[in-house]
Amino acid sequence: MGSEEVKLLGAWASPFVHRVEWALKLKGIVYEDVEENLFNKSPLLLKYNPIHTKVPVLLHAGKSISESLVIIEYIDETWKQNPILPEDPFERANARFWAKFVDEEFMEAIRQALISEGEQQEKEVKQAIEALEIIEGELKSKQKFFGGEKIGFVDIVLGWVTAWLEVVEEVAGIKVFDSQKFPSFNNWMENFVETPIIKDKLPSRDKLVLYFHKIREFSLASPTIK
Amino acid sequence: MGSEEVKLLGAWASPFVHRVEWALKLKGIVYEDVEENLFNKSPLLLKYNPIHTKVPVLLHAGKSISESLVIIEYIDETWKQNPILPEDPFERANARFWAKFVDEEFMEAIRQALISEGEQQEKEVKQAIEALEIIEGELKSKQKFFGGEKIGFVDIVLGWVTAWLEVVEEVAGIKVFDSQKFPSFNNWMENFVETPIIKDKLPSRDKLVLYFHKIREFSLASPTIK
Repeated sequence: MGSEEVKLLGAWASPFVHRVEWALKLKGIVYEDVEENLFNKSPLLLKYNPIHTKVPVLLHAGKSISESLVIIEYIDETWKQNPILPEDPFERANARFWAKFVDEEFMEAIRQALISEGEQQEKEVKQAIEALEIIEGELKSKQKFFGGEKIGFVDIVLGWVTAWLEVVEEVAGIKVFDSQKFPSFNNWMENFVETPIIKDKLPSRDKLVLYFHKIREFSLASPTIK
Repeated sequence: MGSEEVKLLGAWASPFVHRVEWALKLKGIVYEDVEENLFNKSPLLLKYNPIHTKVPVLLHAGKSISESLVIIEYIDETWKQNPILPEDPFERANARFWAKFVDEEFMEAIRQALISEGEQQEKEVKQAIEALEIIEGELKSKQKFFGGEKIGFVDIVLGWVTAWLEVVEEVAGIKVFDSQKFPSFNNWMENFVETPIIKDKLPSRDKLVLYFHKIREFSLASPTIK
């Protein structure tokens, strides 16, 4: 690898990968996109993320970084233009708190709802709705974005909902979002998808539906994968 | 609250609280320790961490911060002496990666093993041992600590093992650690507990055993709490 070359090991259907792509676009970083097949992982992925063998992996200056939140912080610390995290320590802590909340309380419940059924799935849907109520409460006091007038850390972390949530609802036969019940969240989604760097980097809905049907069927058939 | 006053809502038996205390001690910050009873939470805790109602919560300059990893980063960004995270962005990313690994792959398995039995517990123990093998591999290439010659972010995050792991093993009737199998980890633990600020801030083993017996009994009797 050239000393400053940037490569991203990704997968088109992964919301975690899209976070990193959005962060790179926001910074105006040119990178090479290396598409992984998650059903048949490449030697490159096994080499650069041997512990989790998951995408995304960022390769930069001969080094590799894994875990989407960790990668976004790396990008923000390496390229200073268009800051993703705020400058003030308390605001930074707040952004990290909400990013963690989104991942652990909301996204994980949606992921589990996708690959479960019956009582287990109902429990996950309930958890997701409760998390969304808390996010709605937080968004009420915000301007356009969590990051204020511009997209920031929490916006990037939560951004998957704009393309993936409806797809998971359809594939898993569940209902989590309701624009009447979550008006601030609805506004936030509209603002998010209207942002040029985002609009250009959202996957096709139809392709996602097919792909997530496959994930759901595969997971229900082999429950130990969860 | 005075503008620069530091308070920590904590609980003597919580490894998450100890992380924050170690970070504050490392920085030489004077703080007031407010002990919470987790079986009967105070209005202060409900006010300052309404979402999770968990300790630790750091109160500083009229603001509250929750989640131990988030608090440690806040401490490191607010008081610059004795850095906890390295300066280089790649090294910082690496430290954050391992902190996440410790929490999600190792500590969570130990926590689940404490409050489960039978097949479920066996699964958690297996997961914990696999995580420990990976940590052992990483420690082989290190000097005294993850942070080099001095205690850093990952050391603080992993530090609970030195007092809590043996206690959980006893209370839950499991075996995870073996000094023959994990010599680098064993050395690291010895170095860690010999550090003055740590030695003074470890809870009593006997008290921990009693407390965790209570947690285990309580959790097994009310499985939905998990």
